[in-house]
Amino acid sequence: MSNKGRVKVGIIGSQFEADIHAESFKILPEEGEVVAVASPTPGNAEGFSRKHGIPKFFTDYRQMLADPEIEMITIAAPNSLHAQMTVDAANAGKHVVCEKPLCMTLEEADLMIETCRKQGVLLMYAEELFFTPKYVKAKQMADQGAFGKVYMVKQLEKHFGPHAAWFWDVKRSGGGVLMDMGCHGIAFCWWFLGRPEIKSVLCHMGTYVHGQKTKGEDDCICIIDFANGAKGVVEDSWARRGGMEDRIEVYGEGGVTYADLHMGNALPTYSEYGYGYAVEKAPSTKGWTWPVFEELWNYGFPQEMRHFARCVRRKETPQATGEDGRVVQEVLYAAYRSAGIGGKVMLPVRLKGIKRPIDLWLENRKV
Amino acid sequence: MSNKGRVKVGIIGSQFEADIHAESFKILPEEGEVVAVASPTPGNAEGFSRKHGIPKFFTDYRQMLADPEIEMITIAAPNSLHAQMTVDAANAGKHVVCEKPLCMTLEEADLMIETCRKQGVLLMYAEELFFTPKYVKAKQMADQGAFGKVYMVKQLEKHFGPHAAWFWDVKRSGGGVLMDMGCHGIAFCWWFLGRPEIKSVLCHMGTYVHGQKTKGEDDCICIIDFANGAKGVVEDSWARRGGMEDRIEVYGEGGVTYADLHMGNALPTYSEYGYGYAVEKAPSTKGWTWPVFEELWNYGFPQEMRHFARCVRRKETPQATGEDGRVVQEVLYAAYRSAGIGGKVMLPVRLKGIKRPIDLWLENRKV
Amino acid sequence: MSNKGRVKVGIIGSQFEADIHAESFKILPEEGEVVAVASPTPGNAEGFSRKHGIPKFFTDYRQMLADPEIEMITIAAPNSLHAQMTVDAANAGKHVVCEKPLCMTLEEADLMIETCRKQGVLLMYAEELFFTPKYVKAKQMADQGAFGKVYMVKQLEKHFGPHAAWFWDVKRSGGGVLMDMGCHGIAFCWWFLGRPEIKSVLCHMGTYVHGQKTKGEDDCICIIDFANGAKGVVEDSWARRGGMEDRIEVYGEGGVTYADLHMGNALPTYSEYGYGYAVEKAPSTKGWTWPVFEELWNYGFPQEMRHFARCVRRKETPQATGEDGRVVQEVLYAAYRSAGIGGKVMLPVRLKGIKRPIDLWLENRKV
Amino acid sequence: MSNKGRVKVGIIGSQFEADIHAESFKILPEEGEVVAVASPTPGNAEGFSRKHGIPKFFTDYRQMLADPEIEMITIAAPNSLHAQMTVDAANAGKHVVCEKPLCMTLEEADLMIETCRKQGVLLMYAEELFFTPKYVKAKQMADQGAFGKVYMVKQLEKHFGPHAAWFWDVKRSGGGVLMDMGCHGIAFCWWFLGRPEIKSVLCHMGTYVHGQKTKGEDDCICIIDFANGAKGVVEDSWARRGGMEDRIEVYGEGGVTYADLHMGNALPTYSEYGYGYAVEKAPSTKGWTWPVFEELWNYGFPQEMRHFARCVRRKETPQATGEDGRVVQEVLYAAYRSAGIGGKVMLPVRLKGIKRPIDLWLENRKV
Repeated sequence: MSNKGRVKVGIIGSQFEADIHAESFKILPEEGEVVAVASPTPGNAEGFSRKHGIPKFFTDYRQMLADPEIEMITIAAPNSLHAQMTVDAANAGKHVVCEKPLCMTLEEADLMIETCRKQGVLLMYAEELFFTPKYVKAKQMADQGAFGKVYMVKQLEKHFGPHAAWFWDVKRSGGGVLMDMGCHGIAFCWWFLGRPEIKSVLCHMGTYVHGQKTKGEDDCICIIDFANGAKGVVEDSWARRGGMEDRIEVYGEGGVTYADLHMGNALPTYSEYGYGYAVEKAPSTKGWTWPVFEELWNYGFPQEMRHFARCVRRKETPQATGEDGRVVQEVLYAAYRSAGIGGKVMLPVRLKGIKRPIDLWLENRKV
Repeated sequence: MSNKGRVKVGIIGSQFEADIHAESFKILPEEGEVVAVASPTPGNAEGFSRKHGIPKFFTDYRQMLADPEIEMITIAAPNSLHAQMTVDAANAGKHVVCEKPLCMTLEEADLMIETCRKQGVLLMYAEELFFTPKYVKAKQMADQGAFGKVYMVKQLEKHFGPHAAWFWDVKRSGGGVLMDMGCHGIAFCWWFLGRPEIKSVLCHMGTYVHGQKTKGEDDCICIIDFANGAKGVVEDSWARRGGMEDRIEVYGEGGVTYADLHMGNALPTYSEYGYGYAVEKAPSTKGWTWPVFEELWNYGFPQEMRHFARCVRRKETPQATGEDGRVVQEVLYAAYRSAGIGGKVMLPVRLKGIKRPIDLWLENRKV
Repeated sequence: MSNKGRVKVGIIGSQFEADIHAESFKILPEEGEVVAVASPTPGNAEGFSRKHGIPKFFTDYRQMLADPEIEMITIAAPNSLHAQMTVDAANAGKHVVCEKPLCMTLEEADLMIETCRKQGVLLMYAEELFFTPKYVKAKQMADQGAFGKVYMVKQLEKHFGPHAAWFWDVKRSGGGVLMDMGCHGIAFCWWFLGRPEIKSVLCHMGTYVHGQKTKGEDDCICIIDFANGAKGVVEDSWARRGGMEDRIEVYGEGGVTYADLHMGNALPTYSEYGYGYAVEKAPSTKGWTWPVFEELWNYGFPQEMRHFARCVRRKETPQATGEDGRVVQEVLYAAYRSAGIGGKVMLPVRLKGIKRPIDLWLENRKV
Repeated sequence: MSNKGRVKVGIIGSQFEADIHAESFKILPEEGEVVAVASPTPGNAEGFSRKHGIPKFFTDYRQMLADPEIEMITIAAPNSLHAQMTVDAANAGKHVVCEKPLCMTLEEADLMIETCRKQGVLLMYAEELFFTPKYVKAKQMADQGAFGKVYMVKQLEKHFGPHAAWFWDVKRSGGGVLMDMGCHGIAFCWWFLGRPEIKSVLCHMGTYVHGQKTKGEDDCICIIDFANGAKGVVEDSWARRGGMEDRIEVYGEGGVTYADLHMGNALPTYSEYGYGYAVEKAPSTKGWTWPVFEELWNYGFPQEMRHFARCVRRKETPQATGEDGRVVQEVLYAAYRSAGIGGKVMLPVRLKGIKRPIDLWLENRKV
């Protein structure tokens, strides 16, 4: 590794998130470039490499880790594989960018953090909301005092459910919509408020619409009490029709702001005939739709990847780390347990031996 | 009483809500007319009668109740007086319209219902959201199957706190924002879903901004589980800057709708100079504002009062009754208790001897 | 005629506009009631009377005019019949409410005004925008000085074209979208600005989408210079997809306001299944739609009819008269001529013998 | 010049637009870098170079043109200097990026185009709307057939007037708001529709609010007829209160889309205290505001400058050229003349010897 020029990146994965990683480095190419991809499914890595113009491809990610040119790995694989891949990458001396949620269990989180620390590599947590331009502007205003003391932050993320089959199988996913999208909201509230200590979590969830498809929750509200006296509210749904929703609300004693990533940025559009692409999970391009523009940029993915590449070059300090991911993981534990017992759960959570966070709801459900 | 012509109405009260009652009968005058007003404060009733062109005024509401011309009483007095006034009016043979919340305790609610039943008069509960045209349209669409099975209904009501001093004193108000505005949301969710049995209540509240002024909660989220499998979400705040917010969200497996009474109906307006009136609780009429038009009509107050007058003439059956108010009262008990214990409270609530609903939070606060 | 109680109304017509008249008196019944309807099409008047609970029906409107009980006639018939019907009604001693546009020619307008004057009956012009609550609020703010001196007023009205066949035939309609909907915008700007003298008209029009169906213009922009230094802008279209649009913009040196009657008041709604009714001319009730609530009230029709009934009882002075309709007619002449010659037309317009306003465009088209 | 690596850029100017150029290359640095700046005002170039980290600075732009390292010049100087600077730069062998409007007269435009052609350098016209991501998305949808045949395109740009004094002096500016901002709308409509032949221009303008400050028009509507049967509408104002407006409307026989750069992308925000920065020309950061995020990116400036740098490296073909600027200039002539004579002006315009486009209005004003 030269430690100069653009950071050489290898991607593990070839699906939705892997595409986002590859496209992001194309949009902001000056700090990093993707030089390899690994995917076990026959043909996937090769197809992906052709599609994105990536020189090398592998079916075994361990082979990719052996390539001395690669400096940073991004993990866009199912949740249950994150821990092992991170450990392997760290042991191969690569910096790691891991998709959300960080992993399945707190024990895994600790192992990932510890291994990267020992190997002297960075463990970066791919929470793009920390880089979403519209949300960053909200935080800047808050930090400038626009709202006085902020007492409530809310993040909502809703659509009609994921496309990939494994999300619906709680054995593979570890949980439903809270696990899938609530991890964003938990991270967001914590980050927005300046990472204060978390006191307790109160969560309400249920399977309202997709009960025939999944045991996982498809709608939830999660309320987090912070030690600084503020609360965070996370609302998620896999049961909301009409397309994607991703928005925040910020309440302070001196003001309020709202930021809507989709309808709030889009072009209100009516088409009899339809057109190419509206937005992730849009039900149609006919009738009234809200097409997105520069989708990845407005989410903040390219800015996030550029930041991670700069971190590898020591130009910046990671703003989203394994420790952040671990906090989210602990809140996920507390939230599922809260939903199970129908009451508040205080932090820290000292539960061990949990296999899947959702079990804390499913197996303890009293109400 | 002639039992013909327009229903003769007497108002108890001379403030904000009493004004709304008087104005409402002027907007839709064909079924009812205000013929008397009673207020104990010297001069208030007379001034009110002059302002609204009402023939008779009284300082003692009991004197007004003795007037044989009057057929229906509307109560726009502090919560703690509702029960006694209702009982007195019923015993005088008058139909009763009582403002929200119905009263302070479940025992009072039972007494009010029972007395009116015995006296053969109607006890009507002034929940105007049942008549709010925009919300009625949402319910019509739901009932027409637009959203398939509705699994979540949400109502939000937020501003920066009431003007009258007694709201801040929990001894006089019985509670904070949940008591003041949450009673609307509770009634709304129950009504919208077709009055299903209520299973349990989970509530989170706090005093975030106005702690120096009140012991009452100034921000809360209340989640109601209904026996039909749906949930209701009630969000209220006395800590939200920027003016009044009153809106609903309806989620079904087949669709979603949103209705915003204020920004969603208003005229986006910028004025350097200001103007007469924007909307209830607007912070200013300069800069950007959202002035309301036909405020009472858009809330549904005239339609509500017309309906109540028609009920007295037996042209219609009351759609908002003392029983509705009692359900709300029970949920208020459950919600304050839930916030106190930090967990779900199952219904029915069998608590007796409670003086003020908020005591169930303040005195049992564990978390 | 008793000259007391509710004004007795007879409607000429049985279609879209006649329905609005009948429904409007039901919504605000205290000042007027419909007692008769006349329509030449066999069965129509009878069906209409049954549908709306109207006691009398006629196939010949002249017979209805002979009924001494009737005090006020509303004309909801094709434009070309307005003048004769008005003259007949006036000669029968009835007050007249005439739908927009007032008539076909300036000569007709003069005859209508003169005949009503001579017979001592009121000629009221059914421009409901003068009563649209949201627009009235905008005018109130302007009159309160919110915007300082208003220098521009804009009214837009757009959809994908009328349903009835006769609108497309310029021989029967007298013009396209300017004649059909521009008459609203012209009246609106004039009224909003306080009825200042009109200096000149500049108009651009074309047949962009429906050329195979009509010779009439289906899209236009009309700019009116007023003697007080302000301008009015009227934008109309029969070629705009996605449903109905009706909105205004008001610009003053000290501020600005916007009022949108449809999307700006409606409930943003997504439905997989559809539902009863969204709004006039909505393309569908599936997908994303903006259903209206209390459509007639929000347009101001009931308020308008109540006002007209009050005028008959001399409780109010007509705020929309034959003279208003004549001004609109003169601007229509000027606008079609302007589009024909491609330049400004100064008022007053002294053209005589015009049969249809649109001929001033079609027959003089230079550009 | 190496013809490799990042294109070396010199900026002429040190104010508002020059800042945008410098910031844009920082946001997307991989294709171009600013190496020099020239400004005649003592100290300005040096200050600018320090602020943006630019190695070289000059008080005489001709000296900068002598620097062999510089490959591309961007001109952010007053309109009246564009032509001479372009000619000088071209003669020095530099590629030229010229801000809008291209120049003052058609003769200047011809000279600029011809000189650059002869010298073999690119003349690129800095119309950022061709790169505005939201508008680009609208064009993509149109090109994909979303709206069928597009018959009308509208672009609006409004605020309360420019800050710099020279804009108000028509001798220095050449015109008012049409010259200043209408050049964007003219370019936009033409580009959006695929650069069809322009048939005629009809324009209405006036000085409504700022008559004591300027002879220039502060509000205008300009309607362009294209040979393909579509029309373009350009609305501009220096008299609109409430902040910046920049938006488009696209109408086709099969659909419609709207794109709002400011309110439509921003965070609706209320602040008692204010904060750092809302958006260009915002009247305040207190009360309700619509703060922008990533302002330059959302306008498309960095994407535009990256494109121009790529053009210099022959990786892309210029999408905004001197020829585009000349078309705009011709429409400006036609529009001012149209406003002067109160009628349509056919293209091509063969007027010579015009000093300032606005003279065609001021000196020929008949109406």
